[in-house]
Amino acid sequence: MSARFDVVGFGNALVDVIAHADDRFIERESLVKGSMTLVDTDRALHLYRALGAAVEMSGGSAANTVCGVASFGGRAAYIGKVSHDDLGDVFGHDLRAVGVQFAPGRPMDDMPTGRCIIVVTPDAQRTMNTYLGVSSFMSPGDVDESVVADGRVLYMEGYLFDRDDAKEAFRHAARVAHAAGREVSLTLSDSFCVDRHRDDFRALVEDEVDILFGNEEELCSLYELDTFEAAVAAIRRDSSLAVITRGAAGASIISRDSIVDIDAESVAQVLDTTGAGDLFAAGFLYGYTNGHDLATCGRLGAIAAAEVISHVGPRPLVELRTLVPGR
Amino acid sequence: MSARFDVVGFGNALVDVIAHADDRFIERESLVKGSMTLVDTDRALHLYRALGAAVEMSGGSAANTVCGVASFGGRAAYIGKVSHDDLGDVFGHDLRAVGVQFAPGRPMDDMPTGRCIIVVTPDAQRTMNTYLGVSSFMSPGDVDESVVADGRVLYMEGYLFDRDDAKEAFRHAARVAHAAGREVSLTLSDSFCVDRHRDDFRALVEDEVDILFGNEEELCSLYELDTFEAAVAAIRRDSSLAVITRGAAGASIISRDSIVDIDAESVAQVLDTTGAGDLFAAGFLYGYTNGHDLATCGRLGAIAAAEVISHVGPRPLVELRTLVPGR
Repeated sequence: MSARFDVVGFGNALVDVIAHADDRFIERESLVKGSMTLVDTDRALHLYRALGAAVEMSGGSAANTVCGVASFGGRAAYIGKVSHDDLGDVFGHDLRAVGVQFAPGRPMDDMPTGRCIIVVTPDAQRTMNTYLGVSSFMSPGDVDESVVADGRVLYMEGYLFDRDDAKEAFRHAARVAHAAGREVSLTLSDSFCVDRHRDDFRALVEDEVDILFGNEEELCSLYELDTFEAAVAAIRRDSSLAVITRGAAGASIISRDSIVDIDAESVAQVLDTTGAGDLFAAGFLYGYTNGHDLATCGRLGAIAAAEVISHVGPRPLVELRTLVPGR
Repeated sequence: MSARFDVVGFGNALVDVIAHADDRFIERESLVKGSMTLVDTDRALHLYRALGAAVEMSGGSAANTVCGVASFGGRAAYIGKVSHDDLGDVFGHDLRAVGVQFAPGRPMDDMPTGRCIIVVTPDAQRTMNTYLGVSSFMSPGDVDESVVADGRVLYMEGYLFDRDDAKEAFRHAARVAHAAGREVSLTLSDSFCVDRHRDDFRALVEDEVDILFGNEEELCSLYELDTFEAAVAAIRRDSSLAVITRGAAGASIISRDSIVDIDAESVAQVLDTTGAGDLFAAGFLYGYTNGHDLATCGRLGAIAAAEVISHVGPRPLVELRTLVPGR
């Protein structure tokens, strides 16, 4: 069945505010390194004031992923909510600039565009503090159904589950996609996010999700199991395909009848791990929607993840299509 | 005479919007590589739409310089005008975050914060397109006289001369500084800027400027002379001290009785020349206001310039004080 888009991303539309700080900052502010925490206006202002000079660039997990798909030469669209402010303009520009169609939902100007204050520590880990702003006011009416119905794979963030309206929008989008004969994928996003919404996620994975993305820790948290092997057995019962990243150990692509292990690409220097999972998903989904086998899809994921962790910022700085061997 | 600040910067408060593009983009948009062009709203929107994904970070020539002074451990303040929008917040935060006191002038919210759309080409040259926004509405009443009077050296951009009110504010600030027994410095900013305001600049350099900053091309343009040697002879008549950068050839510090030549620092890879002159001035002024000889001042300038051209963005990414040998 033909489709205008390979991948339609759906998530919290955020601009990243990236600053470097040391481990003492993480301790002093009682942050949990490597995780994502939702913060209110006061806390966001406090953290921003406490941090040094920052750089602003578009982010948002699923938005990073669709930009990666476009960077491979894929056709992508994005559903997410921004405001008519400077950061909203930045977010929209940076999607369109790489060829992603942006479906921004209904306008609403009393809330600012969401932002994610990212603290990068010297070990290249990122600790994220998200002020959702207008992005969290996503509701079913904001979902452009024609866009969803025209994408081979709908890709949604677990982060959306932190607000009830967005959760409803998420379920609505999944139904629209399935009604149009499309596949639905979900990324678990963060092990704390899994912790907050485990039952909802489990039900979704059983009923609605065709492809699950996540890392080892998130998968174990989903099933409350201690070993990767046990979690793999569980996901094989629930989902036909799971793409699980394992940091420097690479990734495993788990289907009902096989497990394909993917090595990580070597990286001269890891500078900022922000976007690693988002870009692995981008490479995988570009390959998957363009007819490649699972091993090739995984290899494309590893190439994209390696590019994004070798510099500061959550999106590729080079055309990912130029990094594919033999092109 | 004691002073709260080593350096008080005064200039157009801008947030940089940095995108990479190739030489065909420069040609297609009829840009003049390496120069700064003032653009109106429509042209700024056109260029932004035509460019790829961008990164936002605080800029502004004199603002970059005072951040450099602070990065060496100096005490600095900045006078410039922003709006109450996202980019204005970013600009103020990034000054305060490095310890620079910000004197933003009287509020005015009908104009957005100014921005400079910077196109970085593969040869690391930057081509700047400035939408001044609220920054150009600087007038004498916006100058915090107590801040100016409390800085050892007032440092002002030639760029301010592109609007009459700002020019008047510039002259007012110079008078306040001199009345308080301070020194006044000016950077010529851009050879096209010199071209537009040559007579005003010449009069200023003769009457008000104690330290002139610029590059070889700007100095030659100021005096409409073809050789560096002839321009050096001219500036020695007009100004007691001139700090002239010469790209990879280093810099010359020209006083009435001596010329001190400074070698450029070696750089592994030049990635983006934005801020090179601003940061040379920062190192020089930090040294000058902290009692160092001219050769040491020049060396500090070269160290700061080398740091800023080795990465994308107009301000240092490391504490410049850590790069000073023997510290």
